[in-house]
Amino acid sequence: MKIALDAMGGDHAPEVTVAGAMDAARDFGIGLYLVGKEAMLQEQLARYDTTNLDLTVIPATQEIAMWEHPAEAVRTRPDNSMSVAMRLVKEGRADAFVTCGNTGGALAAALLTLGRLKGIKRPALATPFPHRQGYCLLLDIGANATCKPLYLQQFAIMGSVYAQALLDRPRPRVALVSNGEEAGKGNALVQETFALLEQMPSLYFVGNVEGKEIFAGKADVVVTDGFTGNVLLKTAEAVASMLTDLVKKEAKQRPAAAVGLLLAKPALEAVAARLDYREYGSAVLLGVDGIVMVGHGRSDSLGVRNAIRAAFRAANSNVLKKISNQIKI
Amino acid sequence: MKIALDAMGGDHAPEVTVAGAMDAARDFGIGLYLVGKEAMLQEQLARYDTTNLDLTVIPATQEIAMWEHPAEAVRTRPDNSMSVAMRLVKEGRADAFVTCGNTGGALAAALLTLGRLKGIKRPALATPFPHRQGYCLLLDIGANATCKPLYLQQFAIMGSVYAQALLDRPRPRVALVSNGEEAGKGNALVQETFALLEQMPSLYFVGNVEGKEIFAGKADVVVTDGFTGNVLLKTAEAVASMLTDLVKKEAKQRPAAAVGLLLAKPALEAVAARLDYREYGSAVLLGVDGIVMVGHGRSDSLGVRNAIRAAFRAANSNVLKKISNQIKI
Repeated sequence: MKIALDAMGGDHAPEVTVAGAMDAARDFGIGLYLVGKEAMLQEQLARYDTTNLDLTVIPATQEIAMWEHPAEAVRTRPDNSMSVAMRLVKEGRADAFVTCGNTGGALAAALLTLGRLKGIKRPALATPFPHRQGYCLLLDIGANATCKPLYLQQFAIMGSVYAQALLDRPRPRVALVSNGEEAGKGNALVQETFALLEQMPSLYFVGNVEGKEIFAGKADVVVTDGFTGNVLLKTAEAVASMLTDLVKKEAKQRPAAAVGLLLAKPALEAVAARLDYREYGSAVLLGVDGIVMVGHGRSDSLGVRNAIRAAFRAANSNVLKKISNQIKI
Repeated sequence: MKIALDAMGGDHAPEVTVAGAMDAARDFGIGLYLVGKEAMLQEQLARYDTTNLDLTVIPATQEIAMWEHPAEAVRTRPDNSMSVAMRLVKEGRADAFVTCGNTGGALAAALLTLGRLKGIKRPALATPFPHRQGYCLLLDIGANATCKPLYLQQFAIMGSVYAQALLDRPRPRVALVSNGEEAGKGNALVQETFALLEQMPSLYFVGNVEGKEIFAGKADVVVTDGFTGNVLLKTAEAVASMLTDLVKKEAKQRPAAAVGLLLAKPALEAVAARLDYREYGSAVLLGVDGIVMVGHGRSDSLGVRNAIRAAFRAANSNVLKKISNQIKI
């Protein structure tokens, strides 16, 4: 089992990618290809004792920056670290791909190099998403801004298979994001998708959900188009960040409150840990012909290590085969 | 100046609607029609000293419940309190309408009784929405699940006029919700609307915004379709509620943390007050031929009082005329 890591991807690459790869190799016995600028990666590796660790540097002379328009960058710079790493998967030398870099770049490189699974119209980006009881799988969070009902139906199937295979949900409850719980609610896309999902005996479709129900944990797989999913995800992150900052700001003006927050710190940290993407997991691109795991751009070495572990588990789970079987029905 | 209040609307009607009307009449000298079941309203009024207050009960024998499918209810029960109150506005006896009841009911009754302003394709529901610096105006939050670029263009105009007339924004910055700040981002609706807004010299269009920018206060008017707006609003509410509950739950297991939260209470309450809809305001239905203010269903008497004040101010502001002037251009 080998994982191809885009060692150049992410806000703190290659320091944290190499460190995270080291940790994953040591902690889980995972073999890794570190793909990127050779001298830089060797320099990072030289800082560690890599005896007995299965780490191989694979040179790639180019890279995709976080801010770039990805599709064009991938096409015009074929020796970028993402595409090179992706090719290792395509050629069967690696079992999965991991990046903490430009998400659009990963999507473009995956489509170009790995291609879609047979029958899949559009791949979707799925992320574990925290709620009161634990977390659900939310997809699509941004691969497809404009969707058709058939795409969403396939997202539901892929999400359900993934949740079953990898998130310990024997019979995942699948829900559709809407502006109201009732069946008639939603825009045209939601209404048409609702009708499709209702008719699928292989899915445990529990209907529409709003924010309240998502965060109450009423579904294991939450399906939506990539535009809405992206807005939902980013709104949730921004509200959490705003609330934290506002409380700190108010506490600053009140010495007793500041002491209070200090005392409450273990409780606040426990909540923060539950909402920490490094703990609850990386996004996965479902529907391409390979395991593609996309960690958070801000990942530290723990985030990289955990993204590698997630890719390792996904590669072990036979999830691509399982998705293909469901799509053929 | 008279306000027509749907005294039967809201989770705690008619107790809090009558109490809120009392307070508004006393605090702001506003005249009110209390519309609803006569005996119930008289019974509530009898609890107060109404000397010198301009409060008139207008009987309506029917009502629209919070859970009802509104359009049909409004059509088949014409003597419902919303429609009766709306007719007072239509006939010129009242200057504005206020409800804390079924939002869809208010929308249906408004379309049926007041009709749209000339040139307006679709009315939009707009709400003040809190962010780090204060609040913006977010629309549409649910009147139109499916939108066309022209609708969103009109929402932008109406929101801008409203923010200027009523929210003290001399030159409101207007933004479009998208899945990325860059101009090319968004679904087809966003991309086409972007092109329309860019060409309007009368608007101060600042481009696309994501959650981060909305909560950073980068726009005064945040425009989106009613589906996305509803998801955004409900996600924000649900995250805030989840975080509060998770922190309390964690603190319970840690006595020191519980004491800490007690000390931090004034700071937490200050934040909660900033995010309290009773303080930052009611939703307004823009684009119908009358002032229609929709308070939160959970409103207490303070929420009702403040919704009445908001309607009073809107009626005084000549905002309908200003919208009409902009739409004619």
